[in-house]
Amino acid sequence: MSLFTLNEWIAQQLQDIEQALTDWVAAPRGHAAPVPSAAGMDTLSQAMRYAVLDGGKRMRPLLVLAACEAVNGNRHAALRAACAVELIHAYSLVHDDMPCMDNDVLRRGKPTVHVKFGEAMALLAGDALQALAFELLTPADDAPDGFDAACQARLCRLLAQAAGYQGMAGGQAIDLASVGMHLDSEQLHDMHRLKTGALLQASVMLGAGCGAASGPVQVALLDYSAAVGLAFQVVDDVLDVTADSATLGKTAGKDAAQDKPTFVSLMGLQASQQYAQALLARALASLNTLKSSGLPRTDALRALANMLVNRQN
Amino acid sequence: MSLFTLNEWIAQQLQDIEQALTDWVAAPRGHAAPVPSAAGMDTLSQAMRYAVLDGGKRMRPLLVLAACEAVNGNRHAALRAACAVELIHAYSLVHDDMPCMDNDVLRRGKPTVHVKFGEAMALLAGDALQALAFELLTPADDAPDGFDAACQARLCRLLAQAAGYQGMAGGQAIDLASVGMHLDSEQLHDMHRLKTGALLQASVMLGAGCGAASGPVQVALLDYSAAVGLAFQVVDDVLDVTADSATLGKTAGKDAAQDKPTFVSLMGLQASQQYAQALLARALASLNTLKSSGLPRTDALRALANMLVNRQN
Repeated sequence: MSLFTLNEWIAQQLQDIEQALTDWVAAPRGHAAPVPSAAGMDTLSQAMRYAVLDGGKRMRPLLVLAACEAVNGNRHAALRAACAVELIHAYSLVHDDMPCMDNDVLRRGKPTVHVKFGEAMALLAGDALQALAFELLTPADDAPDGFDAACQARLCRLLAQAAGYQGMAGGQAIDLASVGMHLDSEQLHDMHRLKTGALLQASVMLGAGCGAASGPVQVALLDYSAAVGLAFQVVDDVLDVTADSATLGKTAGKDAAQDKPTFVSLMGLQASQQYAQALLARALASLNTLKSSGLPRTDALRALANMLVNRQN
Repeated sequence: MSLFTLNEWIAQQLQDIEQALTDWVAAPRGHAAPVPSAAGMDTLSQAMRYAVLDGGKRMRPLLVLAACEAVNGNRHAALRAACAVELIHAYSLVHDDMPCMDNDVLRRGKPTVHVKFGEAMALLAGDALQALAFELLTPADDAPDGFDAACQARLCRLLAQAAGYQGMAGGQAIDLASVGMHLDSEQLHDMHRLKTGALLQASVMLGAGCGAASGPVQVALLDYSAAVGLAFQVVDDVLDVTADSATLGKTAGKDAAQDKPTFVSLMGLQASQQYAQALLARALASLNTLKSSGLPRTDALRALANMLVNRQN
């Protein structure tokens, strides 16, 4: 794919993702019996939409759609999976920003959800977004964009594992316990493999799960997604030092201020930047297995890896 | 079933439920790569277990298992569904007790999770319990207690809908918005239909979803579960007035102290007690459809409805 075609591809995917999120995180009251006393539900719906819409780079959904395309998977399933993983990501940010966690007031250049809607509503909105993710993955038989139950169950399994104790939530727990502590390289890698890596890896594997990828292709995509997931965090740590708050859309320099262990504090700025590039090269190399397996459509996965590592915010 | 046999049945189910919860909310680190820096994960695991084990009447799991038995469903699926719905219930209590919500320090006679483990860990434990619920519902093909993907997808769909915006989380949002407000009877019913009713109803329908219930049987079980779910809340409101904290295992008289609308504040104590009995009668009557559909094993569902309405705490 030429760069022009690739930019077109990304623009088209982003349009589809935003439309789907807008449809699915709409107040879904039409589905339920009318609730006259729905003042609280309207607020909850607004908080959920505020947390998800009009912001975010949608890197995880793009990875889902790119991986699905690479394995010639089911587009209906992938679009739902793309939104589901974004809902999990969005809920984790809402809860992470709360006063009892990172106590952050700025996210994507806007007041965080608890600042705008109050802590109780932020807590509920996060909880409801997680449930909605699994609802999206399990459309009823008569849904116009339904897909087979085996795929639904597979996607739920992948997402639940990535979001929970052995994934994102577990990584956040390690993060909590590690503030002010010295972590060695292995421990820092473990923390990030769970905290941010699990969901990024799941994004790729969700996309692959929308098709019937062979064993070697699955392994190659696991390698790709592990390298991309780790590189993402290394770049995050670099940007926390090199970028300003306006560019980041969130408070810069927070890691150092909170005495959090980072790749930069462990290995220095320049080595971190080189490490990110090495991980990018590893991710790209792993995609060769797909080409040799008769799956040549890896351009989008390549472009996304480049975007993730060379981003400015 | 005789009373003796019925008590034996319940005791056996409770034993199975406790064993399954103990196994599944154990630190599942054997499944993942070893994480040396797992101080935070150990704490998270402890908080999750603290929230789930050694407490709770397990009414929702019992409803799942009783409904499964009534429709001759798959026992493996039902035991996982029973635990999954209890995890959702447990996570909702953890989050509900937090300072930004009900700010309660006592639950089942013990300090609440955030009192014991801190707010951040309570937030994460609740989040991880919700994810674990969906992980339980989607065992891999090689799991010894696996079951078919169609059933897995159906159970995920039911649970996600009951837990989210159109269910429990939505009801809690209405509850938040209604403190200090006058609700009429319809509004109070709507709030509870979502806040506590949805998950109780889902418990019955999850059990039914482990088998192949016909349309009329599904409708009958929906009626049964709606009546039981509502009766449960009416009794809760009654007990908040008539029982003491030691019997309840939580702070009594909180509703009045917080000026929350309840069935007792709306219709008075005696009328509330009569209403609960009328709902019980409705629940029991709806089970006649099962008998006439060739499904005679409704004794456990009957017994549970009685227990729920005539409980002392």
